[in-house]
Amino acid sequence: MTYAAFAAAHRGPRPLVLPNAWDHASAAALAAAGFTAIGTTSLGVAAAHGLPDGAGATRDHTIALARRLAPLPVLVTVDIEGGFSDDPAEVAALAATLAGLGIVGVNLEDGRSDGTLADPDLHAARIAAVKDRCPDLFVNARTDPYWLDTGSPLETALARAARYTAAGADGVFVPGATAAGDIRTLAARIDAPLNILYTPSGPTVDDLAALGVARISTGSLLYRAALTAAVRTAALIGEGEPVAGDQLTYAEVTALQAPRE
Amino acid sequence: MTYAAFAAAHRGPRPLVLPNAWDHASAAALAAAGFTAIGTTSLGVAAAHGLPDGAGATRDHTIALARRLAPLPVLVTVDIEGGFSDDPAEVAALAATLAGLGIVGVNLEDGRSDGTLADPDLHAARIAAVKDRCPDLFVNARTDPYWLDTGSPLETALARAARYTAAGADGVFVPGATAAGDIRTLAARIDAPLNILYTPSGPTVDDLAALGVARISTGSLLYRAALTAAVRTAALIGEGEPVAGDQLTYAEVTALQAPRE
Repeated sequence: MTYAAFAAAHRGPRPLVLPNAWDHASAAALAAAGFTAIGTTSLGVAAAHGLPDGAGATRDHTIALARRLAPLPVLVTVDIEGGFSDDPAEVAALAATLAGLGIVGVNLEDGRSDGTLADPDLHAARIAAVKDRCPDLFVNARTDPYWLDTGSPLETALARAARYTAAGADGVFVPGATAAGDIRTLAARIDAPLNILYTPSGPTVDDLAALGVARISTGSLLYRAALTAAVRTAALIGEGEPVAGDQLTYAEVTALQAPRE
Repeated sequence: MTYAAFAAAHRGPRPLVLPNAWDHASAAALAAAGFTAIGTTSLGVAAAHGLPDGAGATRDHTIALARRLAPLPVLVTVDIEGGFSDDPAEVAALAATLAGLGIVGVNLEDGRSDGTLADPDLHAARIAAVKDRCPDLFVNARTDPYWLDTGSPLETALARAARYTAAGADGVFVPGATAAGDIRTLAARIDAPLNILYTPSGPTVDDLAALGVARISTGSLLYRAALTAAVRTAALIGEGEPVAGDQLTYAEVTALQAPRE
């Protein structure tokens, strides 16, 4: 049911705008703001704990966050980096844990912390293993040639997207693609809903909609905006400059807490 | 050494401005911005985990955060609410754990989650127990009559501050006091450095310095500013409005991570 609803949200008249939370309150606040689905940000989870991102260091923290977010009245998809394992069975086991918590989807990436792309056969095997074990988990296959140094990112992304959708991926995420021509080609030639990463200097939601994009995520942007606001507010106070009083109130933040059991 | 440095920072020509972090990256970013001491925010810790604030629900999360922040190149003082226990020995044991991690101070509050103030004898006993066990931990005794419904908050705060400093408190924190006359009286009559909570609508740092305030903390403000920025950024994207590209970059946030062991 939630899988069907989430998949349908990728095929609507407008792209699904998916903001990425890093903790319970950020997720609850985004849900309260009207977003019907949210993702998580691996950078946010890693940085919150002082750990490196995309390096497989945050498996337990990712599960703990998923456990906290699953009860929220919103669809939740979780960034599991590269699945925290090269063993497809282990990745499928993690996916089953998340699905058991009520998580609707995962992001699974082929970029590796050493700056290379994972073997596409390995990544396809991880995707297939997850879908075999959890057919109702929306698997968003992320491919990173635009971020890692490959000679022809568009061709690489298309080739990998074909492998991943053949393996059962429900969607394909190509972060780093910002040129309109590339995005149009990706949307036209990938046989699954295309997810693009929003960047302030890149295309708007309307632009991306016109290019055929199905899902727009914010990645680490919201966490970075949050950190930036905290540091700027502190700096203004320290410098004796005025600070706007337009933050969520203490009572509003308290109201975001999970219901008591 | 760190205790002496932190205590000295409360007796300088300018108040100590103490921003409050909620996770590793926010603490590291505040340290990188030049703050020499930081606190934690119990609201931030609680809300991040979907738990109530000030209700004794976050002891383990508070210790985990302290463990993450202690290695940062900055003095760290930790908000331990009411000590997570009415047993002075248990509060002292928690303080010893934190001191052992390298934490320089704690905030210990007499406000209770039922909206009443703790018995002043009990709170003084907690303070004394902590100082007896950890003489080099800076104990900032927080008293909450301005936030809880007491008839004469100034008189209550003065009476409690006298009890708490007699019990060994190194400083006194009176959140909610914003009227200049009250703050001046508190600073003059409390025999320890006075900590006031900064609010955007209240006195500036210069105002507070002139009133005799020794320490100015931001409480939950930075966490609330962070959440607010995240939700506003997401809302702008969803509405197709432009988003400023002035956030900390991915590389800047990644650089905040703890050194690898």
